[in-house]
Amino acid sequence: MRIDIISANVNILEPVTKNGLISRAISGEHIEIHLHNLRDYSEGNYRQIDDTQYGGGAGMVLKPEPFFKCINLLTESINYDEIIFFTPQGKIFSQSDANYYSLQKNLLILAGHYKGIDQRVIDKFVTKEISIGEYVISCGDIAAYVFADAVSRLIPGVLNDAESALTDSFQNGGIMDAPVYTKPENYEGLKVPEVLLSGNHKKIQEWKEEKGKENYEKYKAKNGKNTNF
Amino acid sequence: MRIDIISANVNILEPVTKNGLISRAISGEHIEIHLHNLRDYSEGNYRQIDDTQYGGGAGMVLKPEPFFKCINLLTESINYDEIIFFTPQGKIFSQSDANYYSLQKNLLILAGHYKGIDQRVIDKFVTKEISIGEYVISCGDIAAYVFADAVSRLIPGVLNDAESALTDSFQNGGIMDAPVYTKPENYEGLKVPEVLLSGNHKKIQEWKEEKGKENYEKYKAKNGKNTNF
Repeated sequence: MRIDIISANVNILEPVTKNGLISRAISGEHIEIHLHNLRDYSEGNYRQIDDTQYGGGAGMVLKPEPFFKCINLLTESINYDEIIFFTPQGKIFSQSDANYYSLQKNLLILAGHYKGIDQRVIDKFVTKEISIGEYVISCGDIAAYVFADAVSRLIPGVLNDAESALTDSFQNGGIMDAPVYTKPENYEGLKVPEVLLSGNHKKIQEWKEEKGKENYEKYKAKNGKNTNF
Repeated sequence: MRIDIISANVNILEPVTKNGLISRAISGEHIEIHLHNLRDYSEGNYRQIDDTQYGGGAGMVLKPEPFFKCINLLTESINYDEIIFFTPQGKIFSQSDANYYSLQKNLLILAGHYKGIDQRVIDKFVTKEISIGEYVISCGDIAAYVFADAVSRLIPGVLNDAESALTDSFQNGGIMDAPVYTKPENYEGLKVPEVLLSGNHKKIQEWKEEKGKENYEKYKAKNGKNTNF
């Protein structure tokens, strides 16, 4: 998969490509991430990328020209499956969305400042508006980080078997992960549940399912109607 | 506000403190972020921080000792308002949660790998389990990034007036942001809505409210019951 990101803050995303799961996905040639600095597509001596709002209002708005220039250049050679803009007004991102995007070949992300990007860019190009959650963050770059991580880890080969995404909480509706424990058995009087030390695989499996259901019930109680289940 | 983060992947969070809004909040002395490398609190020559699961199962689990050691050391001198663990099983983070956390003085975040941290650490110390959304990401560090950004920007003085959080979409239930436009008025035939050029402040305000309501209706249509409104 190839992900192109047009950004006004490439310094936020550059380290992302060098650390953690995304860097492993890149070095394993499972994904490519191409960052495009919006400023490189701006005009004039000042390389201005934003300006004041028409009609007044707080906050600068990212100008249309640099986006049009960059997007037109990219789409000359690449056929994007989706062109994505992160906004609090988008569809709230879920694990089934992550599955969908992990199956695409070419994605283009427009990462704006929170307060705005000229609406003509959105109207002309954007195919999906996504919200990573019902809260406000300072820029789309952070949303792009979350998105790229959630999507990359579902691409076959990115995770090793031991981390397999197949056992993810959100891949099994109604059952979440059970608590996990590792050595030592007894840490300053705090003990690992006996059943996990029993060697009885059937009982262990039953315990995990029971705890997974309990966790799901607690989750529902915390989040009420506000879940995708 | 002081945020301490205990992490198995400090290389993910180090660049975060040097870029974007969070670095501005730090240099303006509105927040302090202290990163603690879990490995520095591990024992033995191999500085092992994780081990296999009791009872079997895919994925390594972060060991209890390094967390206990680091948390005990920190809590000797700091009284934390909340000790936070990011997990898909937590309460789904919202803007009102961001408001709550922005009013605290000392927060401690335990950032684990996704697949696990010994449950005894959670049972002993964690006061809030948070999910940034209904999807799975590779590590708590990315969730900590989202959280720290959403919370920092609400601390008075972090945003300048032009970016004021008071006009955020999620701060005004039922009305979202209207589309925004900047120069040029006419970009290759795509025009800014005339009302915004009219200079009639009353009409502009009415247009913005109408569009903000329309955006909220579209948002509800996309997300159905799955919203906090």
